[in-house]
Amino acid sequence: MSKLTPGSAIEGIYLLSSKETRQTKAGKPFFKLKLGDRTGTVDCTVWETATMDSQIKVGDLVCITARVTEYQGKPQLDASKISPAAPGSAKPRDFLPCTYRDTEELKGFLRFHIESVRDPDHAALLQAIFGDPGFYEIFTMAPAAKLYHHAYLGGLMEHTVAVADLCDFIGQQYGRVDRDLLMTAALLHDVGKTRELAFETTIDFTDTGRLLGHVIQGVTLVSEKAKDLPSFPEAKLQQLLHCIVSHHGELEWGSPKRPKTIEALILHHVDNLDAKVKGFLEIVEGSRDAPWTDLRNLFRRPLHVPRAAHQEEDFLPPSEG
Amino acid sequence: MSKLTPGSAIEGIYLLSSKETRQTKAGKPFFKLKLGDRTGTVDCTVWETATMDSQIKVGDLVCITARVTEYQGKPQLDASKISPAAPGSAKPRDFLPCTYRDTEELKGFLRFHIESVRDPDHAALLQAIFGDPGFYEIFTMAPAAKLYHHAYLGGLMEHTVAVADLCDFIGQQYGRVDRDLLMTAALLHDVGKTRELAFETTIDFTDTGRLLGHVIQGVTLVSEKAKDLPSFPEAKLQQLLHCIVSHHGELEWGSPKRPKTIEALILHHVDNLDAKVKGFLEIVEGSRDAPWTDLRNLFRRPLHVPRAAHQEEDFLPPSEG
Amino acid sequence: MSKLTPGSAIEGIYLLSSKETRQTKAGKPFFKLKLGDRTGTVDCTVWETATMDSQIKVGDLVCITARVTEYQGKPQLDASKISPAAPGSAKPRDFLPCTYRDTEELKGFLRFHIESVRDPDHAALLQAIFGDPGFYEIFTMAPAAKLYHHAYLGGLMEHTVAVADLCDFIGQQYGRVDRDLLMTAALLHDVGKTRELAFETTIDFTDTGRLLGHVIQGVTLVSEKAKDLPSFPEAKLQQLLHCIVSHHGELEWGSPKRPKTIEALILHHVDNLDAKVKGFLEIVEGSRDAPWTDLRNLFRRPLHVPRAAHQEEDFLPPSEG
Amino acid sequence: MSKLTPGSAIEGIYLLSSKETRQTKAGKPFFKLKLGDRTGTVDCTVWETATMDSQIKVGDLVCITARVTEYQGKPQLDASKISPAAPGSAKPRDFLPCTYRDTEELKGFLRFHIESVRDPDHAALLQAIFGDPGFYEIFTMAPAAKLYHHAYLGGLMEHTVAVADLCDFIGQQYGRVDRDLLMTAALLHDVGKTRELAFETTIDFTDTGRLLGHVIQGVTLVSEKAKDLPSFPEAKLQQLLHCIVSHHGELEWGSPKRPKTIEALILHHVDNLDAKVKGFLEIVEGSRDAPWTDLRNLFRRPLHVPRAAHQEEDFLPPSEG
Amino acid sequence: MSKLTPGSAIEGIYLLSSKETRQTKAGKPFFKLKLGDRTGTVDCTVWETATMDSQIKVGDLVCITARVTEYQGKPQLDASKISPAAPGSAKPRDFLPCTYRDTEELKGFLRFHIESVRDPDHAALLQAIFGDPGFYEIFTMAPAAKLYHHAYLGGLMEHTVAVADLCDFIGQQYGRVDRDLLMTAALLHDVGKTRELAFETTIDFTDTGRLLGHVIQGVTLVSEKAKDLPSFPEAKLQQLLHCIVSHHGELEWGSPKRPKTIEALILHHVDNLDAKVKGFLEIVEGSRDAPWTDLRNLFRRPLHVPRAAHQEEDFLPPSEG
Amino acid sequence: MSKLTPGSAIEGIYLLSSKETRQTKAGKPFFKLKLGDRTGTVDCTVWETATMDSQIKVGDLVCITARVTEYQGKPQLDASKISPAAPGSAKPRDFLPCTYRDTEELKGFLRFHIESVRDPDHAALLQAIFGDPGFYEIFTMAPAAKLYHHAYLGGLMEHTVAVADLCDFIGQQYGRVDRDLLMTAALLHDVGKTRELAFETTIDFTDTGRLLGHVIQGVTLVSEKAKDLPSFPEAKLQQLLHCIVSHHGELEWGSPKRPKTIEALILHHVDNLDAKVKGFLEIVEGSRDAPWTDLRNLFRRPLHVPRAAHQEEDFLPPSEG
Repeated sequence: MSKLTPGSAIEGIYLLSSKETRQTKAGKPFFKLKLGDRTGTVDCTVWETATMDSQIKVGDLVCITARVTEYQGKPQLDASKISPAAPGSAKPRDFLPCTYRDTEELKGFLRFHIESVRDPDHAALLQAIFGDPGFYEIFTMAPAAKLYHHAYLGGLMEHTVAVADLCDFIGQQYGRVDRDLLMTAALLHDVGKTRELAFETTIDFTDTGRLLGHVIQGVTLVSEKAKDLPSFPEAKLQQLLHCIVSHHGELEWGSPKRPKTIEALILHHVDNLDAKVKGFLEIVEGSRDAPWTDLRNLFRRPLHVPRAAHQEEDFLPPSEG
Repeated sequence: MSKLTPGSAIEGIYLLSSKETRQTKAGKPFFKLKLGDRTGTVDCTVWETATMDSQIKVGDLVCITARVTEYQGKPQLDASKISPAAPGSAKPRDFLPCTYRDTEELKGFLRFHIESVRDPDHAALLQAIFGDPGFYEIFTMAPAAKLYHHAYLGGLMEHTVAVADLCDFIGQQYGRVDRDLLMTAALLHDVGKTRELAFETTIDFTDTGRLLGHVIQGVTLVSEKAKDLPSFPEAKLQQLLHCIVSHHGELEWGSPKRPKTIEALILHHVDNLDAKVKGFLEIVEGSRDAPWTDLRNLFRRPLHVPRAAHQEEDFLPPSEG
Repeated sequence: MSKLTPGSAIEGIYLLSSKETRQTKAGKPFFKLKLGDRTGTVDCTVWETATMDSQIKVGDLVCITARVTEYQGKPQLDASKISPAAPGSAKPRDFLPCTYRDTEELKGFLRFHIESVRDPDHAALLQAIFGDPGFYEIFTMAPAAKLYHHAYLGGLMEHTVAVADLCDFIGQQYGRVDRDLLMTAALLHDVGKTRELAFETTIDFTDTGRLLGHVIQGVTLVSEKAKDLPSFPEAKLQQLLHCIVSHHGELEWGSPKRPKTIEALILHHVDNLDAKVKGFLEIVEGSRDAPWTDLRNLFRRPLHVPRAAHQEEDFLPPSEG
Repeated sequence: MSKLTPGSAIEGIYLLSSKETRQTKAGKPFFKLKLGDRTGTVDCTVWETATMDSQIKVGDLVCITARVTEYQGKPQLDASKISPAAPGSAKPRDFLPCTYRDTEELKGFLRFHIESVRDPDHAALLQAIFGDPGFYEIFTMAPAAKLYHHAYLGGLMEHTVAVADLCDFIGQQYGRVDRDLLMTAALLHDVGKTRELAFETTIDFTDTGRLLGHVIQGVTLVSEKAKDLPSFPEAKLQQLLHCIVSHHGELEWGSPKRPKTIEALILHHVDNLDAKVKGFLEIVEGSRDAPWTDLRNLFRRPLHVPRAAHQEEDFLPPSEG
Repeated sequence: MSKLTPGSAIEGIYLLSSKETRQTKAGKPFFKLKLGDRTGTVDCTVWETATMDSQIKVGDLVCITARVTEYQGKPQLDASKISPAAPGSAKPRDFLPCTYRDTEELKGFLRFHIESVRDPDHAALLQAIFGDPGFYEIFTMAPAAKLYHHAYLGGLMEHTVAVADLCDFIGQQYGRVDRDLLMTAALLHDVGKTRELAFETTIDFTDTGRLLGHVIQGVTLVSEKAKDLPSFPEAKLQQLLHCIVSHHGELEWGSPKRPKTIEALILHHVDNLDAKVKGFLEIVEGSRDAPWTDLRNLFRRPLHVPRAAHQEEDFLPPSEG
Repeated sequence: MSKLTPGSAIEGIYLLSSKETRQTKAGKPFFKLKLGDRTGTVDCTVWETATMDSQIKVGDLVCITARVTEYQGKPQLDASKISPAAPGSAKPRDFLPCTYRDTEELKGFLRFHIESVRDPDHAALLQAIFGDPGFYEIFTMAPAAKLYHHAYLGGLMEHTVAVADLCDFIGQQYGRVDRDLLMTAALLHDVGKTRELAFETTIDFTDTGRLLGHVIQGVTLVSEKAKDLPSFPEAKLQQLLHCIVSHHGELEWGSPKRPKTIEALILHHVDNLDAKVKGFLEIVEGSRDAPWTDLRNLFRRPLHVPRAAHQEEDFLPPSEG
């Protein structure tokens, strides 16, 4: 989407993320669509409604033939033909935004942190969870949020690795920290998000995500897996669950208990730090040409865009998405 | 304790709930104790420390011989002999305060509500939980809180029955309510308290109660029991867990999700109503002779004592405790 | 309004609730109207401004001739003639939304609760207030709110009866409650709304409603009526006024005093419960076809729509409004 | 009380504000009293309980013979005889703290502001209220608070005059202000305190003060008086009542409506300013010798004591009270 | 702008404050502009984009030829020619809104307050700051805010004079106030705004205003000037800086310290009072014909428009702006 | 202090931190003292007031001869002689608690971080500040707080080094961070505490600390030093000052601006993390023998004491202080 040149013609497969019927002054209906791939979205007008297959609905993949125009400095499309994409030609999920990090590298970091845990109970639990292929596939593909930070495919793994990196370092800066508990909690603190968020065609909350939320879902997921192990000690499990339960830090941020152990306290601060710092960087990415962002963002204030933002190519998402 | 007459002598078994060593001006040590049975507590002085068995510690049952004196209008004791109660002569728990309601009657109401649930899944789950004798014994004996409302033995059952009574009535006042879900949620909303609170010698939080809390503990207890059933439907379970998760109503009151279903909303309001109204009545019970309580209470304001409070005998705890 | 079939022609009397002048690209003005009856509102375009009587203003009843069209799945009107409705042909109030409950039945319940009060002072006060024909007419017709819950004609009586029903039951569940005080307070707690809200053509706040609000207005109304009685005891009046003053429960919710008596406490919780539960049901009524509402509502979160919502015919407003 | 010299003997009439029975180590009871006049309070010990008339209770005036001793730098009394003061020898109220301002002068200022109101309706209302001798006597004697600011006899009048002084000046600084409405509201904004506070023997809340509060009580007092006038215009009354209702400024500070008129807005800010500035000055008065107060005060922070505080004699309360 | 008559033609110089490119249904682009002078703004359409110099950007002064039309009761422009204003023909700042007060008179009041300070240190500091011609020019021209109150040229001086007027009076109403400190603080409390706000073409925050804010900027400005004086006593400087630092009154309103001295406390209340009262009056100015404003304003509630608002000519901004 | 054995006699120099005069029942005065060295404090009774030099006041060093007794399990002293310590025998500061870390090592880490900054402006500023011997001496000796975390000598340096350590690591985990700005801000963020806190005899706020606070004091300190440099760029200074100004993160935590740059955001989270984690560890240090602390602490909740707390000898403060 970031490559559309006004005046050119395009043909390709996109995800239909919104569709509205409007009407010209003369009473003739037309469609206003939003089409997306993982590099972004574009507005698209279909003046002749007959050229769009009437079965197509939001969330479908569509094959589109269009002319690129421009409106208020942004490209948009005038479509002349819209048909359903051939079955199997692509998966909707491929059209969602994705981490710009190397997924295999992230998986390597994840494995590294898992293998660094020496306590046999914690190690066995991590193996039972991340060793489950179905879970692992979802975990490595899931976003970490619907909005705000890491709201793209791979975001959950990226955030988890970042939290584990920081906990690894910070856990060593202070005395009295149970390193294996801290690392296990870091790796598992957001596993409930694999059940809270759906990301088939768009990122949205599941029913159970709305009803229970990832804190509770993480507790039940980890709890079930621990109960299946021959002998995960009850007290150890409670310490781990406490870290998950309290990782939002305050009741009004969705944790029914505030951190009461040193490991839970560190995890909360690290989780918050990564969410806020990554959220900041994502926001300023969207304002590359101005010195300040506006205030409609997670922080509800204008943020200062780092000066070199438009120069550091390696921070850009890969050009083909 | 409510029967102590200044000037008389007593001999009996009590729970030692506090012990301090003090010193007269002459440097002679003496003990200041607090002794309790379920009707209340009394201060007790032991001037001759040798008359008290040195092995005795807080939480023990003691056999005491004392003279009743008076200080600022309240009775207190001057003990001349304190020894450990004979093993088996009583259980510490018998000395905790207890509901003044008839326990068997409450059990009957509880059974009535359980049996009123017709949906086979919910009925089976209730049977699996309340039919477990170990759980049932604890549930019917547990307090509902350490402080504030229903902070006495039997309080959990009393509160649960009251919530079920009100949900039964209110659920019928409005359309669209799933009555069986509402009643099941009412009966199970606080089952986590059987794991949150210890009440062997005093009412206090367990370690796991401090780390996880009864909301999370209720979720895992109900979740485990439902998983053990052959076929409790997942969506039905989520609806039920949502009621438990959200029954405190607001994030800052310890619910990680706020009520999003009509049953959860009703349950929250009914739970809050019973806690506040019963809390109010317990507070004014403690101020029978004044028109207003002080403001050191759950409501942080002076409460008006209903006028007939000192006359309605049937509201008093039974005289023998 | 719920019966408009695209393609058909209609002629009828409606309430004009909004009027905007717009302009075609060619500079020709046209009108965008909103028309309503108690089943809802519809957009209406008047392309030829000359066909609309220039004296007509918002709040008037109009006689309209129009063709039904459709826009984004919703019907709208293309008016060919708009004239003032003949004087006396209808009252604006008849075009406001109205309770779907049977008004006479509600009046019966109201009378039942009034007559259940045995204390002669309270009974006399209720008679003095509800026995005033002017007040009674307004009370039984008034909405309970401008937005949120019970925001329709008859809503105030419906809410009052619901609060009285619940207080009647709950007051018996607990000891020490002065039943007559509680019922009188339940019946009178919102009488100030008869002065706070105007509902001639739309539901809106009166000047005095904005300046004083229904809590204060209820206090002065009840206070004046009590002073007119030969001998309403001062202390009894203060207890009653306290219930009215504190029924919002918290200072930040508009009560200058929080509940300090058991009756005021129960009334507050019951009032809140009915407002929230009825508000919930009204919101999900508006989202019959989706499993979740959006979050632009009183609760500021998506609400789960009870599954059978589109099937229970008896919950629908009567078809003719 | 500020004149007690250790070592001397005294004999005089004081208000008994607290009485506790204590016990020597030998079991002999003695009394600990607090005695006060308007210059302060002093601790008093009665070693021989027989020397104190057993009928005497808190709130009584007592005639005392005692020796002045010293404890931790403060004087205290050893009483040898305590009997009830002769009936009529004094009024308890004379022993409460009192404004250091000249009461007659304050009454003059009050009259000046009342007479400055030219609008005949407002003038008539002020006359009806302040011209009532019973009300006038209470108003000019009442404190403005139990704690915090102006918590002494005459405080209500002193605060009212100060608010009127400031409103008089500030009302002229801005356009569009209805000066007569502002001055009338300034003079009447706290009249409800004459019903909220009792000050027979100590300053405390009345029952009705606890149940309704001075905002509501002010509304009903002014409302009744206005209704008694032949023709106080309704709209004018609502404007005035709005000022009273909203003078605390925010819902959480006890105003059920926030200021919506320019007069109500000015009144709120002026009332707040006088309460805070006078409260500050009273607090630093109590810390004359230190550069900072502690943080147990209305502001919950240490306050800086103005440097000349211990020198300005004219700020001191008159030596004889 | 307040003089535009539909149907007439105009030609003049205006500030371009907004420019959007839109497109007709036929795909032909046109411009939507906002043009302003200090009496307000007007919408302007440029149907033929070629008639507008392509170099022109937001913030420029433009020379415009247009026809006045009307839309929804408000005048708007159809421009036939837009070119850059001749260099030097005007300054952008002349097109910003401006205080309706007489600027020379305000300067006189400012000088009067400065000269009233007798303490030689404070007097010298005021002289060093206001005697700096560059500072003085900016101070007397600056707005006091971007939004809300005094958001127009001259607003900072107008607000400063108003605060000084009130402090002058109020400082005399209470004992123990250091009058010279209070007046100096009143005059300097907002000097940081000369660095926080830019007002070349529109009123907006500077980079340093966003990063530090006028509280900090005031501290550094006053601090630097005091250090340049031969001998401004350190303790005196801290007292003055404390007033600046704490003048917002509460931490959440942007003051890192709350008022701890009597002067700082008075200054905070006076500053708040003038901001709120002036803000109120500016809001109701914008709603001259309705009895109530809407609730999208600084107070987030509907405000009552004083009745004579449309009659008092002298309150209007001068007709030529 | 941690070495006092009941029954033994001691003689030594201590800091007198509190002194009260009390009275025996017989009217004989005695003194209650608190004495401290950096390992803690002990209560001390002086029965014969004549044995204590009457010139001695709180904050003095005293030479004491006493017998060690025990009260409620804690040692206390019965002093037989108290005289002023010989001048020069010790400094009061030596008796304050002190970091258990090696001060020279901390100085090395501090130097390492300072020397790691390569930007010449930032490097020059750090040199100008830390190269000032007077500042350096205070900075390396100062506590970081009066209460809560790092409230001991050397605490400011210890906290600063910890923040710099974490910023060094975390700054590399994210893109777009200006490393030199972040490290300079980390090193300077709390320099204002050298002016906010006094620690001659006890740790307490200075007058200027109370009036301005370390955020403002840090801004003026850094600002003055930067102005003294030949050419510290203004924009660079604002970025640095913004980090200092916003390092508390939220307005209600005392920062007048919230973080708006990536460096300020990281610094805030790191500062908060070190304060909370170190605060937690200090609290649990004080509860070595219990599994939970009480809830009277910075976190207002019971904290879980890490299990090995009583075994890790190297975490203990050095035995001789």
